[in-house]
Amino acid sequence: MAFMTSSHPLSTLADQSVAALGEHGLVTAVTALLAAEPDLDDGVLVGPGDDAAVVRIGGGEVLVSTDVAVEGRHFRRDWSSAVDVGHRVAAANLADIAAMGGRARALVVALSTPADLPAQWALDLTRGLVDEAAEVGARIVGGDVSAADQVQVAVTVLGDASGPVVRRSTAQDGDVVAVAGRLGWAAAGFAVLSRGFRSPRVVVDAHRRPQPPYAEGPVAAAAGATALVDVSDGLLADLAHVAAASDVTIDVRADAFAVPEPLQAVGAALGIDPMRLILTGGDDHALAATFPPDVLLPPGWTVVGAVAAGASVTVDGVTYEGSQGHQHFG
Amino acid sequence: MAFMTSSHPLSTLADQSVAALGEHGLVTAVTALLAAEPDLDDGVLVGPGDDAAVVRIGGGEVLVSTDVAVEGRHFRRDWSSAVDVGHRVAAANLADIAAMGGRARALVVALSTPADLPAQWALDLTRGLVDEAAEVGARIVGGDVSAADQVQVAVTVLGDASGPVVRRSTAQDGDVVAVAGRLGWAAAGFAVLSRGFRSPRVVVDAHRRPQPPYAEGPVAAAAGATALVDVSDGLLADLAHVAAASDVTIDVRADAFAVPEPLQAVGAALGIDPMRLILTGGDDHALAATFPPDVLLPPGWTVVGAVAAGASVTVDGVTYEGSQGHQHFG
Repeated sequence: MAFMTSSHPLSTLADQSVAALGEHGLVTAVTALLAAEPDLDDGVLVGPGDDAAVVRIGGGEVLVSTDVAVEGRHFRRDWSSAVDVGHRVAAANLADIAAMGGRARALVVALSTPADLPAQWALDLTRGLVDEAAEVGARIVGGDVSAADQVQVAVTVLGDASGPVVRRSTAQDGDVVAVAGRLGWAAAGFAVLSRGFRSPRVVVDAHRRPQPPYAEGPVAAAAGATALVDVSDGLLADLAHVAAASDVTIDVRADAFAVPEPLQAVGAALGIDPMRLILTGGDDHALAATFPPDVLLPPGWTVVGAVAAGASVTVDGVTYEGSQGHQHFG
Repeated sequence: MAFMTSSHPLSTLADQSVAALGEHGLVTAVTALLAAEPDLDDGVLVGPGDDAAVVRIGGGEVLVSTDVAVEGRHFRRDWSSAVDVGHRVAAANLADIAAMGGRARALVVALSTPADLPAQWALDLTRGLVDEAAEVGARIVGGDVSAADQVQVAVTVLGDASGPVVRRSTAQDGDVVAVAGRLGWAAAGFAVLSRGFRSPRVVVDAHRRPQPPYAEGPVAAAAGATALVDVSDGLLADLAHVAAASDVTIDVRADAFAVPEPLQAVGAALGIDPMRLILTGGDDHALAATFPPDVLLPPGWTVVGAVAAGASVTVDGVTYEGSQGHQHFG
């Protein structure tokens, strides 16, 4: 979970474990600590709390974001090949740059590995990272390797912020809400794999190699998006971040979403409401944005809701029952 | 161990574990894979293989480097406070920017943590990172948190490359070799702690919070350094990287090094040759550079050797007995 803005009081932390505090609580506490630092007017244009930070360096404006993937939590070696893991980890990072309206240029990778990992696995991982980065014209420019008990891949991505940068905190009352890219496919793949199945292949592949709509980030920014976010935790959970940061309410219309046939099939086979996969499934790295109501939406975008006053997320005007998305340390 | 340049043949990898290949072997294999990618003329001015990469982004030139620290391997929670670990991990990253002649501007942090970690430990870690970064005017601008079996801190640092950038591959036959900063102090602290002692306090503190001579990197670059590297593995080991990358021999004179009193004390108490600590101890993040022989060295720098033709590292003209520095997966 990335650092984000909140008003979590630091004083409640004393003697709590990370588990007791929760991942979200820890993240908000760390972010509050960083936010309390004096403003140095030092070229940090966007700090912690968005999909990526924006820093002025060497005369240019640079987007930067980091994501760590841990074996057994973010990927399983018996579910995904090393090449798949590389694609998946790179995609999570590259989508963060798209979600600011930027273009990714370079990645660095820190690989932690047990001594008994096949060396070929590390090379295949690198191949996946390289190939996914190449989708957007980005390169792996450096890295680090360390021994550890568990395979872990920490990736940092740098992007070009020379175009318009779109934050999550600037959605406006009266805007429309739109999405680009697939929703629920990776979650359906995860559900299938969790129950020991390997099909439908299209959703298993969606889990292994998400297909974020990278190009739609800069397209949305150029079209005048007021807020932009990537869907990594689940649509409702990530829209809740936009709603909280922008101090607005976002209402999503369930009938705005077509339910693709593979999600219907998974829902029927596993007894899951496919709409739940769409509304709460993360890891496809779709993009969600708000636009002023008079903007002609770019072709890759579909209107799914509207922004109003308040500070919550609703579906058809009602608070959604159950989890809005993924939580660690559950 | 950071990615670096080598000609390690990929074909020897088949079916080897990371342990069999060794950390250095894995790093060189991954780097070879990256080096085999087509040159896209895409703004990557320096790729994998130096202390940091240099990428042209958004109209500026950006230095970027990543380092991961793993509990039990790079730090111990019973030896170092969380604040100390923050200082230490930030220092390792910030020194990589200094070692290119650059100035660090921003860091992102990926923290992996077991659920039972005290939340206060994570906040204290952040405090240490923030304070060490402030030493050079850099900021923590973002991060990620994940659950894991082991505490790990992966940091990426971004720096300003608008001044002269000095690589490790450009030392010249006839140059002098010079160092800035402390050598052997952190290794002495590690030796003391390893045997269950907590004094001399100055070397234990040197292990817990290294004091890299950050400002000497840009100073050396401005003075005309031909090659520059930070001493993280040990002076001889890191000079060997310079020698290999530059295709030169570097000879170090043992009598060029004063042996500080605390190192004499640790040597006498533990039966260690203090010169071995100086020549092979890493983690102080001193800087080592080569300069043309006619350059007037900046005040922070001390001549310790000379560059000649060949491709090795010697001490007083002779190959050094024993390890030249730290190796993982030993």
